[in-house]
Amino acid sequence: MNGEVLIALDAMGGDHAPRSVVDGAALALASHPELRFLFFGDEARVRPLLSAHSTLNAVSEIRHTSDEVPADEKPSVALRQRRESSMFLAIQAAKEGNAVAAVSSGNTGALMAMAKLSFRTLPGIMRPAIASIFPTLSHPCVLLDMGANAECDAKNLFQFALMGDAFARAAIGKESPSLGLLNIGSEEVKGNSAVKEAADMLRATTLPLNFHGFVEGYDIPAGTVDVVITDGFTGNVVIKTAEGMARLLAHDVKQALSRSFRAKLGYLLARPAIGTIRDKLDPRRYNGAMFLGLNGIAIKSHGSADAESFANAVRVAHHIAVTGVNERICSELQSLGETAGESDATSLANA
Amino acid sequence: MNGEVLIALDAMGGDHAPRSVVDGAALALASHPELRFLFFGDEARVRPLLSAHSTLNAVSEIRHTSDEVPADEKPSVALRQRRESSMFLAIQAAKEGNAVAAVSSGNTGALMAMAKLSFRTLPGIMRPAIASIFPTLSHPCVLLDMGANAECDAKNLFQFALMGDAFARAAIGKESPSLGLLNIGSEEVKGNSAVKEAADMLRATTLPLNFHGFVEGYDIPAGTVDVVITDGFTGNVVIKTAEGMARLLAHDVKQALSRSFRAKLGYLLARPAIGTIRDKLDPRRYNGAMFLGLNGIAIKSHGSADAESFANAVRVAHHIAVTGVNERICSELQSLGETAGESDATSLANA
Repeated sequence: MNGEVLIALDAMGGDHAPRSVVDGAALALASHPELRFLFFGDEARVRPLLSAHSTLNAVSEIRHTSDEVPADEKPSVALRQRRESSMFLAIQAAKEGNAVAAVSSGNTGALMAMAKLSFRTLPGIMRPAIASIFPTLSHPCVLLDMGANAECDAKNLFQFALMGDAFARAAIGKESPSLGLLNIGSEEVKGNSAVKEAADMLRATTLPLNFHGFVEGYDIPAGTVDVVITDGFTGNVVIKTAEGMARLLAHDVKQALSRSFRAKLGYLLARPAIGTIRDKLDPRRYNGAMFLGLNGIAIKSHGSADAESFANAVRVAHHIAVTGVNERICSELQSLGETAGESDATSLANA
Repeated sequence: MNGEVLIALDAMGGDHAPRSVVDGAALALASHPELRFLFFGDEARVRPLLSAHSTLNAVSEIRHTSDEVPADEKPSVALRQRRESSMFLAIQAAKEGNAVAAVSSGNTGALMAMAKLSFRTLPGIMRPAIASIFPTLSHPCVLLDMGANAECDAKNLFQFALMGDAFARAAIGKESPSLGLLNIGSEEVKGNSAVKEAADMLRATTLPLNFHGFVEGYDIPAGTVDVVITDGFTGNVVIKTAEGMARLLAHDVKQALSRSFRAKLGYLLARPAIGTIRDKLDPRRYNGAMFLGLNGIAIKSHGSADAESFANAVRVAHHIAVTGVNERICSELQSLGETAGESDATSLANA
């Protein structure tokens, strides 16, 4: 029984649930045999899928519930009316210690609202943030906030840096991840006041953070830093623009390479090589965003996740749980309070 | 002499000046024979370059000055100390009616500061914005603000919509361009207060604007709308992230296609097809950002512009001048003031 890592799964969340959830768990188990699962959802639908995977079946339990959160339900409504839903019960299992983390491909807003209510924020954290992993020229990079906070002040950004540091150590295995604060390079106005003040706080902190300084939009795909810190408005727009660009270029390449016999032949020959790029940039490989700053682990998988994609979200949950991201965030916040703590502690206390 | 379009050029601005400026003007003249040029800069360096182009030489004059604005000079310093610079004199020529527009590849901040001082803002406009053209899946799209205003309120965004509408009619030739307000799609928090309020103003306006509603990051490369409106912080980050993504993918494709003999052969065959994509997305084709909201036309060309790229910036200046963007903005602002004008006029008056 030792070394087992038990994850609670919302079996009903996402466009391809419950199949993607069950098949995804089977894939994750194949790479991480120490995984164990609690599936929350409609037993009549989950049981037959699970029976098809004997190894997975042997390490899983189903907790039946007939309720689920609709994809377009308002978070406030879901929070009031869905206390018996597969999503809420999965989070409760993580809260009560019956699982180390909960994973769902369901409604993002509802998941965040339920996770906040159940887990509560870590002591000292003002606002949770959504952290995501992004492929770059050289290595995966962590981006936060991806949309939990549309308006952020300098203290929020400072805390995002601290949380992003802890998350990057766990999720991409960097010992001292470099942190970049997203800014603009126009000579006319260099950034807004929140960004400028957050940079001052990061330069002055006594925490062992590897603060690189400001980065610009170019630096995200270039992989200049390991962690890019920004407000939830900019972060959300940036990640979606980047995904849109990847789709635009893939579409253009496909079109161009099917236009003539010569191009088609070239494509046939180059296909394996092009496939390696597609794999590298495959968003499924980077599925699994974490709600950072909560006293528990909730991983958001993309709503359109297939089995391979969901398996990655489960692997992220596993890494995060065993590497203790939240413990690290807490200890950094605590050491902020304990150290001479002039600037940091004062600023945070004034928050 | 009729139909001539006279443009003032900062011959010394940019990494490849003055050659890129002179050669670029020659390319623009080849496609637009009605162009005439005033070159501001070091005559000893510009004259020999100009002599190599007899047609261009015949329609150009050089106004000698030995001063220029360094690329990294602070805008406030340039504004005080560079009144004899090639950049300032080019703008002055446009201000005094000796040219219809000024084009420079020099220091963006200095150019904006000089253009603001010389041209002044259009009546009713609170803040100028930088508008840029962006390639998408289907058609070029206008983005603003690209970095002139790091912090924007709802009224600023509303005015950007109005200016973007006028610019899109001129620059990309759309009769009733669709306008999208950039927002985030997280169910948790849908946008910040400025964006929400600006959307209300755009829905309520009596102006003949084709307001599509909110768009997300995905929609920019997809070409969902003709004009994307956002604050200068987000806009600057977005355009740089998109450029970075294009570079990342181009680099990856190149690497992958040189890895094996088979891939190399495929690349050789597919090269013409891949070339058409490269052409379509070539940032040089979209060079030439406009400072909108000023009582004059200043076009910012990329600092690293080559001749082809600079030629496009000159063509943008030409289009903008002959289509009367500023006149349109003024008349829209005026009709805002004249119409029953409850919400719009009141909001703008309260600004």
